[in-house]
Amino acid sequence: MALSKNQFKLITSLKQKKYRLKYKLFIAEGTKVVEEFLNSNFELDQLFCVNNSAYENIEDCYIVSEAVLKKISSLKTPNNVVGIFKIPEVKKLKNEGLILVLDGVNDPGNLGTIIRLCDWFGVDQLICSENSVDCYNTKVVQATMGSLTRVSIVYTDISDYLKGTELPIFASLMEGENVYTSNLPKNGILVMGNEANGISEKILSLKTQSISIPRFGEVRQTESLNVATATAILLSEFKRST
Amino acid sequence: MALSKNQFKLITSLKQKKYRLKYKLFIAEGTKVVEEFLNSNFELDQLFCVNNSAYENIEDCYIVSEAVLKKISSLKTPNNVVGIFKIPEVKKLKNEGLILVLDGVNDPGNLGTIIRLCDWFGVDQLICSENSVDCYNTKVVQATMGSLTRVSIVYTDISDYLKGTELPIFASLMEGENVYTSNLPKNGILVMGNEANGISEKILSLKTQSISIPRFGEVRQTESLNVATATAILLSEFKRST
Repeated sequence: MALSKNQFKLITSLKQKKYRLKYKLFIAEGTKVVEEFLNSNFELDQLFCVNNSAYENIEDCYIVSEAVLKKISSLKTPNNVVGIFKIPEVKKLKNEGLILVLDGVNDPGNLGTIIRLCDWFGVDQLICSENSVDCYNTKVVQATMGSLTRVSIVYTDISDYLKGTELPIFASLMEGENVYTSNLPKNGILVMGNEANGISEKILSLKTQSISIPRFGEVRQTESLNVATATAILLSEFKRST
Repeated sequence: MALSKNQFKLITSLKQKKYRLKYKLFIAEGTKVVEEFLNSNFELDQLFCVNNSAYENIEDCYIVSEAVLKKISSLKTPNNVVGIFKIPEVKKLKNEGLILVLDGVNDPGNLGTIIRLCDWFGVDQLICSENSVDCYNTKVVQATMGSLTRVSIVYTDISDYLKGTELPIFASLMEGENVYTSNLPKNGILVMGNEANGISEKILSLKTQSISIPRFGEVRQTESLNVATATAILLSEFKRST
């Protein structure tokens, strides 16, 4: 089947954030990733695949040629299927358990890694500032594999959220309290900042406590840990004692 | 100054591993990264820069035009200077402290992150199997910033190395002992495996103990932690109690 002009236009537009927000749709690609979304609470809009063996019972499934799939795919090697799914409505934010807040994380690779970490450590609520990179960005969707289906992600005014919570707020800083000796509660919020600038002043003023991963190498170093790496270690610290 | 044909050929060739090994040279780019190598034990071969303000006292420094710099640079935005440095000779391998061994880590981004982690956690010996990605790969050099100057990296037959050591060998596996409750010594070896296949059978048979990071999320998940992320958490575990 040939794609209609509108279908082609829609798919192309969804590579941009503004159209994802406008249509409340995003793209997931490849047998494994699409499978994860089909088996989740995400709602399918339409599916394009090169053969219908696996998807023959799905209503909005269109069979396309390899050439068409290649045309609409963002992958170097398209993998059988491109799906358009609905971006879920913002649910009520959680106020218990361990919650991760991102203040302006910019890099799709870092966000992807962080979502997989949330999945691993059972952090089911990830709250991102509105200037954080979009988790429905094609790169993030493909990098997170199925984790995106298991972690609830909300973009909101994190300042408002943090003002409204009674949970303790832990800000990850270069010069904070040693996380290894900090008393980390079961219910709390961990805030991670932007790759270059860290946590913004406005958000920093709302913290209950600041924490750091001690450095064991030479002091003359100027490097810091990458935000995804630091998140890995901090989530592990919060969870190891629970 | 115009580059000689041989200089241009040399720089281009060093983008490939086989020529880096042949000439025992690699490329570092940009003011900050080059600065780190100049201030380290690495030996300079030659330097190409657009102005000599910072480098005027350096012997093998050639002033080139922006256009030439752009031609020899691997960066999207060349940054003032391209340096050729000598790959250091293999030193004697350490047999104390915490040592990290990589068995076939493939991805330059992962290796870069792992080198920065070694730097952070004061792991000064990183031993890579010969099929691991080359740490003098341009991407790794640029991603590690100065960490490469502070971590000693050796490519060798890790099977021979592990057979010859008396240190306990901890293999990172999906189904190992809970790292949070394991007794982790100050002197020991942590082995991390390939992104897709983990640690090879041959190396696995040499382990003293296997360790894992417990999963807290739902069990139906199939994803594992990325090797760099897992290394972050495991190095933190080894170091937190020392």
